[in-house]
Amino acid sequence: MDNRLDRIKAEQLKGRVVTAEEAASWIQDGMTLGLSGFTHAGDAKAVPLALAKRAESELFKVNVFTGASLGSNIDTVFAQSGIVHKRLPFQSDPVMRRKINEGEILYTDHHLSHTAELVRDGVIGPVDFAIIEAISITKDGMIIPTTSVGNSAIFVEHAKNVIVEINTEQPERLYRLHDIYDTGKHEGRLPIPLTHVADRIGSNGIPVDMEKVRGIVFTDQIDSPSKIVPPDSETEAIASHLLELLRSEIRAGRLTERLAPIQSGVGSVANSALHGLIDSEFHDLEMYSEVLQDAVFDLIDADKLRFASGSAISLSREKMEQVYANFGKYEDKIILRPQEITNHPALIRRLGLIAVNTALEFDIYGNVNSTHISGTKMMNGIGGSGDFARNARLSIFVTKATAKDGKISSVVPFVSHVDHTEHDVDVLITEHGYADLRGLAPRERTALVIENCADPTYRPQLRSYYQEALTRGGHTPHVLEKAFSWHLRLAEKGSMLEE
Amino acid sequence: MDNRLDRIKAEQLKGRVVTAEEAASWIQDGMTLGLSGFTHAGDAKAVPLALAKRAESELFKVNVFTGASLGSNIDTVFAQSGIVHKRLPFQSDPVMRRKINEGEILYTDHHLSHTAELVRDGVIGPVDFAIIEAISITKDGMIIPTTSVGNSAIFVEHAKNVIVEINTEQPERLYRLHDIYDTGKHEGRLPIPLTHVADRIGSNGIPVDMEKVRGIVFTDQIDSPSKIVPPDSETEAIASHLLELLRSEIRAGRLTERLAPIQSGVGSVANSALHGLIDSEFHDLEMYSEVLQDAVFDLIDADKLRFASGSAISLSREKMEQVYANFGKYEDKIILRPQEITNHPALIRRLGLIAVNTALEFDIYGNVNSTHISGTKMMNGIGGSGDFARNARLSIFVTKATAKDGKISSVVPFVSHVDHTEHDVDVLITEHGYADLRGLAPRERTALVIENCADPTYRPQLRSYYQEALTRGGHTPHVLEKAFSWHLRLAEKGSMLEE
Repeated sequence: MDNRLDRIKAEQLKGRVVTAEEAASWIQDGMTLGLSGFTHAGDAKAVPLALAKRAESELFKVNVFTGASLGSNIDTVFAQSGIVHKRLPFQSDPVMRRKINEGEILYTDHHLSHTAELVRDGVIGPVDFAIIEAISITKDGMIIPTTSVGNSAIFVEHAKNVIVEINTEQPERLYRLHDIYDTGKHEGRLPIPLTHVADRIGSNGIPVDMEKVRGIVFTDQIDSPSKIVPPDSETEAIASHLLELLRSEIRAGRLTERLAPIQSGVGSVANSALHGLIDSEFHDLEMYSEVLQDAVFDLIDADKLRFASGSAISLSREKMEQVYANFGKYEDKIILRPQEITNHPALIRRLGLIAVNTALEFDIYGNVNSTHISGTKMMNGIGGSGDFARNARLSIFVTKATAKDGKISSVVPFVSHVDHTEHDVDVLITEHGYADLRGLAPRERTALVIENCADPTYRPQLRSYYQEALTRGGHTPHVLEKAFSWHLRLAEKGSMLEE
Repeated sequence: MDNRLDRIKAEQLKGRVVTAEEAASWIQDGMTLGLSGFTHAGDAKAVPLALAKRAESELFKVNVFTGASLGSNIDTVFAQSGIVHKRLPFQSDPVMRRKINEGEILYTDHHLSHTAELVRDGVIGPVDFAIIEAISITKDGMIIPTTSVGNSAIFVEHAKNVIVEINTEQPERLYRLHDIYDTGKHEGRLPIPLTHVADRIGSNGIPVDMEKVRGIVFTDQIDSPSKIVPPDSETEAIASHLLELLRSEIRAGRLTERLAPIQSGVGSVANSALHGLIDSEFHDLEMYSEVLQDAVFDLIDADKLRFASGSAISLSREKMEQVYANFGKYEDKIILRPQEITNHPALIRRLGLIAVNTALEFDIYGNVNSTHISGTKMMNGIGGSGDFARNARLSIFVTKATAKDGKISSVVPFVSHVDHTEHDVDVLITEHGYADLRGLAPRERTALVIENCADPTYRPQLRSYYQEALTRGGHTPHVLEKAFSWHLRLAEKGSMLEE
């Protein structure tokens, strides 16, 4: 007998096992799919890949909703096969990015805490098939997710049909990892009862109407590892300026050495910033974040981190092997929740988070662009950065001061796209220093941004823009006809630097 | 005996009555004042005006923190007398605006729900004197505010000294109007227990350490009336498109005829939009808003509105007389709260508000500018619009399609300042129609914005910009060198319209 069936504890579902190909054959042109998956973690793999295979001999389009970015090459294959009509709420795949920027794939880039509300209210959807990776299905028909929760619960609740992919490579021991809470509809909604990072407020798994479970597929493909670039001298400098800022908050009596729950954006710069905490004096830290990256587990190993709440565990290959081989060491210190809860404005504000997110560029007044290259080309998406920046106690954006060997300045006169307005940005950090903009009028911010954050080669240009802007006046002085001159120079001459 | 003293029920405070001039004399150069007052309602009047008088023979500067805009000519006189170093978080005075735009007064324009957090954390302040208008002081030393709450409670809690202005023209019967709740510091913060618009969750008045009450001043100057422009054909058309939108939400099963709690921005366009509900089929409405304007009381009179929660009552002269002469009719249907609570992200999201705010301009992708004329000159400030737009169930922005006799288009290729990003804007409405942008990719939004909202004379120019942008490609196509050409044409030739 197939002992994989032990993973299906609900007797009435044991007979619903099918192949990935069969499950994929149910999906029809024009349908909307709700896939598990968040930053390469816990994505449904077998059915999506079988579906893309169908496109070799068939013409059809589907809408693809997920938690966030998918791994396992799925977004690449989806984009190449031309089957995606609309994609939301986040992606980070190079091929898909190109198709989005060519206008071939429609992309709705929204705050990650909003997807659940939009599905619940029927603004987007209906979801025809929820396809969810799981470690098991319980006796009473709860789906236990794997390494991410993302939007899986809301997709399952609202989908017409559910396909479960049971990944037998994921240890059953993960069953205590998740905490599934549903806010319910607006009418009669109660306060979310979470008051501490480690609180459990929901169920162990995703409740599902078993009638809707159309099929169960077995897989054994592990998550794609994340590609974390190791810290370099610039990211180390950014980390040290972050520590400097936190120390000055302690001196001002606003924080203690236990800090406050930390949220850290995805990627190498944010990961390095967290790494900086390992050798610091801070202790008994907590995270209330979206993605738990390598640094989170390093902080636990270093006995610096008491607890981490997230929506996904996204690790490098090396870290993945180490963490899952020693999971007992971590399981009481981490929890995964729906992204509506990890990113919920009420909880971010209530817990008073320190939010660290990555900027693509920022301007002399503190507006941040985190998505669009030169205002037009989508990079990845806003993800959860807006959820956190808007409601955190301390909203910090980090970036290297230049890109492309100094040809691009991350500090510009006027950002070419705004994802985070001056009202939602407290502190900017580059390898050169930090600018604390809280409580400052626009004219008070410029010197801090230019002198503390911009690359020295770009400072004279920024000063001269601001001096000219001052002759025009206004609360936020600008020379509108030159506002985008830096981006135009880059397009024309290959560099933002004046000759 | 002076029967005004009856308004001071706390025996130990009766001896602290002073003149406005004496109270004003305590304020020293460099101090920070926290004044009551929100949209011309409930502002401390006598001491601020006496302070400005001192400036005729004395040189000094103070920082002026308030709830929102002040009436009674205070901001005008403050600006003219040159005593303001920094002003926050909102103003709407023409003289002060000019000084801000000339760089003479530093202005920190932040979300109205944030002031309390910034004061509580000591990011701004310390507040040397809280000066608060009240109807009375209770036996146990609670200050009962008048027609607004704003930031008064947080100023009183954190100020070193408190001056109370008891306004004897305000009826004592207002004492049941207020509900003062303090979230407290982040550490150990509990969920705010409000689940229905009419819930009372706090105290009747503002608790004060009586030791800090330095003086009590009697005044009898009533609030400045608001200047509400009556509905015209354009604002009526905007109101009718709003109704159309709400009806389509009902058809989609997302709302009922009781709608959802409504927030409405300040000003004539928003007031007219509310007015449109009077003769509609909607009933048993609720408001969870910031400012209760004339239309709120008209809706109560028309038996359409069950309850309204706000932070201030801001009325025209005529309405003021009518409402306060018949206050018994309204007192069970209205409540005033601190602006941290009226504008709190947790409550806005929990209650699922329909938020209607005013745009200065918006662009073809749905970004909204609500503060800066041509990107540089401050109009009023962001106020609470960001608090509401960011967290509402339905975030709507309204504006007339043109200004200055058609010379300015409110729909532009690229907004010259971003207060509300594309991620936070659901629906745009002008007199020509509405554009519902929810769930749409940028390229899907442009036709709706241009064809439904822009003035017909500007549509060809907008179409031609977008067509050219499409040749450049990108997720959000733009022609960066022409992005601000409309604003530049306005500055050069007096009109955005091409010749």
